[in-house]
Amino acid sequence: MEIRVNLELKAETAPRAVRRGDVIVAIDVLRCSSTIITALTNGAKAVIPVETVREAEKMREMNPEYLLAGERRGLKPRGFDMGNSPLEFTREKVEGREIVLTTTSGTKALRRSEGARWVLVGAFLNARSAARKALQLAVKEGLDITLLTAGKRGRFSLEDFICAGAIAEELKVAGDTTLSDGAKAANLAYQTAKEDLLGTLQRGEHAQYLVKIGLEEDVEFCSQLNRYEVAPIYRDGVVRLWNRQL
Amino acid sequence: MEIRVNLELKAETAPRAVRRGDVIVAIDVLRCSSTIITALTNGAKAVIPVETVREAEKMREMNPEYLLAGERRGLKPRGFDMGNSPLEFTREKVEGREIVLTTTSGTKALRRSEGARWVLVGAFLNARSAARKALQLAVKEGLDITLLTAGKRGRFSLEDFICAGAIAEELKVAGDTTLSDGAKAANLAYQTAKEDLLGTLQRGEHAQYLVKIGLEEDVEFCSQLNRYEVAPIYRDGVVRLWNRQL
Repeated sequence: MEIRVNLELKAETAPRAVRRGDVIVAIDVLRCSSTIITALTNGAKAVIPVETVREAEKMREMNPEYLLAGERRGLKPRGFDMGNSPLEFTREKVEGREIVLTTTSGTKALRRSEGARWVLVGAFLNARSAARKALQLAVKEGLDITLLTAGKRGRFSLEDFICAGAIAEELKVAGDTTLSDGAKAANLAYQTAKEDLLGTLQRGEHAQYLVKIGLEEDVEFCSQLNRYEVAPIYRDGVVRLWNRQL
Repeated sequence: MEIRVNLELKAETAPRAVRRGDVIVAIDVLRCSSTIITALTNGAKAVIPVETVREAEKMREMNPEYLLAGERRGLKPRGFDMGNSPLEFTREKVEGREIVLTTTSGTKALRRSEGARWVLVGAFLNARSAARKALQLAVKEGLDITLLTAGKRGRFSLEDFICAGAIAEELKVAGDTTLSDGAKAANLAYQTAKEDLLGTLQRGEHAQYLVKIGLEEDVEFCSQLNRYEVAPIYRDGVVRLWNRQL
């Protein structure tokens, strides 16, 4: 059975994918998805995405053992344990911990995907694993797939689009899939971008902002393709690794 | 002065470009833009885009000398002189004539662009000329540029996105421009697509529909890069060639 690969370009249109009943892969390369993937790979028990700083603070009041992480304008909010740099989420800091995470766009993409049967977290760091897990679920349950790029404040994001193209590439290789026009376009962009992935991503608008506030290492880290073999799943408001999910 | 090149992905978001005060290049490769460009190149005096079949019919009632052209589901509406195939707009048929044109997405993109100071019609057929004219106007008047892809019923269109990338390429070469994330992504997709432009476009969803209803020649015709050196301008509800405009 052929699986269709759709593309939605911002958090706000995630409900379309939910209505289609698709397996959703939520992509926010800089940096929410990359941070979640890194935190869980380094042993965090769970990441709980919330939309506001206040919501994060209230959650910790009720659960003092939680770590608070996130960003506003790229920087750590006052009183938080960590910002939104994946490099901060070391094994020493996160192993065995639950982390409340609030970011501008990525957490919104996850929250807007609620109601979908399966929501995976994807980035360059786990492109292949996210693609394979999405395909496995889609085949097993007779569903299509939506690649959901988070965007930045409702705007097109270069790095998320190219990452959708990288995941589409894995889906093309691994299964009997048809790419929608949007997924095809992202894949074409990825074909050019992969020749110099870091250089291409560095020219993106949000990457340039991150470099300006001193976070160029984050851009480099998040540009690594298939560094981790994990497929985080978002369910009931919490992201966990697949193998700990069931 | 550096000019920013923005991208809007569907007719519905044209008003954003109008609010920014940008020079707009409206792109509907299959087939509205290509048809307008061909008709004007072959001597049509003007093309008048309207949104509904009824509007087109009323306009002819008042102006019996006008030609009626357009499509619904790709096919010529009953009683019209021509469909929306650029191949129909030969010099014999169109020279010296005014043509009322109604199509599903392209005419909508033009109508939604009303209020912009300059609206150009772009396609592969005139990519270079459209880019150069847009740049000339932007430089002269201190404006930015928006590439507006018409899409199909609010959906992403592969051929329009790649064409935006081709026009962005000309803008990069010809002037001091910064591409937005969206324009950069379209340009990356174009870099891959140009290796086999026709083959890539043929895999698009709307191209496949056109082939299915017997219009494969239109897809081939519309894939020709820089066949014509014209820059149609939409103003006061009418599209004319630049040199006849002033």
